Amino acid sequence: MYAGEAHSLEVEEILYEGKSDYQEVLVFQSSSYGKVLVLDGIVQLTEKDECAYQEMIAHLPLCSIPSPKAVLVVGGGDGGVLREISRHTSVETIDICEIDKMVIDVSKKFFPELSIGFEDSRVHLHVGDGMLSLLTPILLDIVSGAFNAQFSTAVEFLQRTPAGKYDAIIVDSSDPVGPALELVEKPFFETIARALRPGGVLCNMAESMWLHTHLIEDMISICRETFKGSVHYAWASVPTYPSGVIGFVLCSTEGPGVDFLNPVNPIEEVDGAGNHKRELRFYNSEMHRAAFALPNFLKREVSLLRGATVPFLVRGELM
Amino acid sequence: MYAGEAHSLEVEEILYEGKSDYQEVLVFQSSSYGKVLVLDGIVQLTEKDECAYQEMIAHLPLCSIPSPKAVLVVGGGDGGVLREISRHTSVETIDICEIDKMVIDVSKKFFPELSIGFEDSRVHLHVGDGMLSLLTPILLDIVSGAFNAQFSTAVEFLQRTPAGKYDAIIVDSSDPVGPALELVEKPFFETIARALRPGGVLCNMAESMWLHTHLIEDMISICRETFKGSVHYAWASVPTYPSGVIGFVLCSTEGPGVDFLNPVNPIEEVDGAGNHKRELRFYNSEMHRAAFALPNFLKREVSLLRGATVPFLVRGELM
Repeated sequence: MYAGEAHSLEVEEILYEGKSDYQEVLVFQSSSYGKVLVLDGIVQLTEKDECAYQEMIAHLPLCSIPSPKAVLVVGGGDGGVLREISRHTSVETIDICEIDKMVIDVSKKFFPELSIGFEDSRVHLHVGDGMLSLLTPILLDIVSGAFNAQFSTAVEFLQRTPAGKYDAIIVDSSDPVGPALELVEKPFFETIARALRPGGVLCNMAESMWLHTHLIEDMISICRETFKGSVHYAWASVPTYPSGVIGFVLCSTEGPGVDFLNPVNPIEEVDGAGNHKRELRFYNSEMHRAAFALPNFLKREVSLLRGATVPFLVRGELM
Repeated sequence: MYAGEAHSLEVEEILYEGKSDYQEVLVFQSSSYGKVLVLDGIVQLTEKDECAYQEMIAHLPLCSIPSPKAVLVVGGGDGGVLREISRHTSVETIDICEIDKMVIDVSKKFFPELSIGFEDSRVHLHVGDGMLSLLTPILLDIVSGAFNAQFSTAVEFLQRTPAGKYDAIIVDSSDPVGPALELVEKPFFETIARALRPGGVLCNMAESMWLHTHLIEDMISICRETFKGSVHYAWASVPTYPSGVIGFVLCSTEGPGVDFLNPVNPIEEVDGAGNHKRELRFYNSEMHRAAFALPNFLKREVSLLRGATVPFLVRGELM
């Protein structure tokens, strides 16, 4: 995942090894982080710290708008994001578009605290069949297998979706890296923006501020072109991700203004706890506000790349 | 540092290996984090991410009180904390009490961006000679070499100091682990409290919220007994520390109230940039406020240990 550095977890027992149509799937019991899910060699989640990622990627967008009703998840086959969305009593429909059925099956077998998210009756699962025809042959060459399929399935699903259907879309999926980024993500984000109602919100996983400032810059740039409401960057501590943090890009479409920095729909008031009755382990309204505070180096590096030199910008506002 | 897990940095070149009276000292060039200082096998700092630790441990206390004048640093022989303190134009005296001259010398040779902190004319260096007589023989058995000496030197220095001399004390030193904690730290914190003016502040490095909740609990408990003002916990992202975070306990003595959560002495107004002219890389007033937002699991684990069950407490307020 990153040169010159390694993070190792002690393996007590390999619990599952398989190869789906899209990726290699591995589950092992670690000695200090509980069970671990690995896809194509990259740690996706551990039982010990999955709470930080799943709670933040779900509640940062859903607590920023009043009474979300229709929510779409792209990726997220482990079910953890569904578990978190189901806390919101206002939500009526949760669509999930996951390419890889093996991820879902493995989660149901080994990660019941995550896959319980699928048991909510509001959840509608759409397992893609890889309608790759929507991507040009050039793109097919550039992007890697699993992302490619995930992406094309989501695009295909979204193009059949009525415009303005969703209050919130959560993209829980890894990103392509390198020259493909702009080619691939621009049409993807445009498709997402179309599927959101005016003033609807997107939360997209967005790398590490310590390792990937250039990727963050690119993603923010594309999102600013596509989403005419607001674009913010937030981050959370997740020990088993590279450099111990993960970021999120939060965007809103033109329409009723969204103030991501101050949750209008605070979790402390709306948590119906789904059908799992698990207490929140990481997220609360203070953590929500704090997630948008950015270190100077990130503001400076991202700003300088476009010629700005102001050292202190509005918090969370990178542009 | 922690079982079942390892974080590895690729070594390009070993630059220095030595053994002082207190510890093994190693400096190497890494391929992705710049130069790295290692003491007794534990990474102390890297050039890439030292900004987060040094800036936070210095400015969290100093920006929480108006016009700090006299500051003491315990440990911190690399000079990075001095560099940050020197930004504060109100400061007139900076005492530093470091046990190990080799750390200072090695920093001056390999880490000029940190050791520049020693060049400020307000800095007075006190290199301890290990007056171990102040510790009982039992304690000498319990605690490890370098910490022991650092601790006893600081206590000896502080006992010669007039009561109420300092506005702020910053402890940039590793902690003992295990049964020695209460025995060792209670008298240490009492000595520190005595040396602070009424309404003076302590900032003490305080472990990882992901890995060491019981140690945090112990430290908070001792501090609540010793400091009659307020006691708060804060944290920052530092990729090369265990689990990618480091915590700080912030305490104030009885006297003028200190609101750690809202800097009354904001860095944006008081940064005189010392004599190094280096821009702040991590800390700003938003990061200061955000540092006190704590995840639910930490509030819950630390609260439950003392019988409380309230899931949502005031931010940063653990008691």
